[in-house]
Amino acid sequence: MSKVLLDMSMSLDGFVAGPNGEDGGLHDWFFSPAGAEAVDESVRNTGAILIGRRTYDQGDRLGGFAHSPYAVEHFVLTHGAPERPARGEMRFTFVTDGIESAVERAKVAAGERNVAVGGGASIAQQCLKAGLVDEIQVHLVPALLGRGIRLFEHLGDGKIGLETTRVVDAPGVTHLMYRVVEEG
Amino acid sequence: MSKVLLDMSMSLDGFVAGPNGEDGGLHDWFFSPAGAEAVDESVRNTGAILIGRRTYDQGDRLGGFAHSPYAVEHFVLTHGAPERPARGEMRFTFVTDGIESAVERAKVAAGERNVAVGGGASIAQQCLKAGLVDEIQVHLVPALLGRGIRLFEHLGDGKIGLETTRVVDAPGVTHLMYRVVEEG
Repeated sequence: MSKVLLDMSMSLDGFVAGPNGEDGGLHDWFFSPAGAEAVDESVRNTGAILIGRRTYDQGDRLGGFAHSPYAVEHFVLTHGAPERPARGEMRFTFVTDGIESAVERAKVAAGERNVAVGGGASIAQQCLKAGLVDEIQVHLVPALLGRGIRLFEHLGDGKIGLETTRVVDAPGVTHLMYRVVEEG
Repeated sequence: MSKVLLDMSMSLDGFVAGPNGEDGGLHDWFFSPAGAEAVDESVRNTGAILIGRRTYDQGDRLGGFAHSPYAVEHFVLTHGAPERPARGEMRFTFVTDGIESAVERAKVAAGERNVAVGGGASIAQQCLKAGLVDEIQVHLVPALLGRGIRLFEHLGDGKIGLETTRVVDAPGVTHLMYRVVEEG
């Protein structure tokens, strides 16, 4: 059965992007030789990717999907599909009937592999609040950005208990893997 | 020469305490057998402790200082010294002329050992903004508290670059050590 893995890079002060969505150096590790092993593992284990509309628009505008090593179907949670198709070869499915539906459809596409929730912060928060996340991988980048878009906020009052399942320190990033163990 | 080490426990979502200053389980590791090695090392390396007034008041009210393994002088940044002395044996010095003065006096007391900035979030932020922090140790606790007092906020626009110097995964906590390498 497919698992839902929240999989994002975050600065030590909790940001996944700068104030205007800029990268802030948070993905330098991903494109560095030192990151290759972690990226290869992720590509092997990922059967579908779930992203938000802003992440889609930004990736499409900047041509970011052309550099993605993930060839799997991308599910985009949105209020309405874009007017023109995305550039490039990546397969996108636009889901307009909510986060549960988006996760369900991504799971079917992923088969035995993971659904990776790749951002932005809003869709990650929606998945966490709805109790849809099985595992969290944070690629913790050693920097304090000072301001930007926070990953973990707007989660409500309930505590979410985690269990650390793996810690891998690599040049320029620490990969932290957690299993969600309790909510409420 | 004494170094200033920001040394605090933090949840994965960035909180050092609950909304009303409650512990939230963030220091369970500190009092567990599995935490003994990290605590022993910290006690050996710490020559003085710098805390804020709220942390002092809370520790004094709850009797927390009676359980502290740190026998060194505690410097308390405050607008005015409390009316009655603290309970217990711990030595407190109340500094009323600002963060730079508090750090300077703590460094003199610490000698060759570290000044540990032990919280709360406000004094940590003041030290970071003033460029007074040499190293940061975050004891990252696997939980999403949902709300509480954030460690890394109100830092302004400048990015602070860090270098990861050590990562130690232990039961219930991951100890992350960083060196401050650039600011601005």
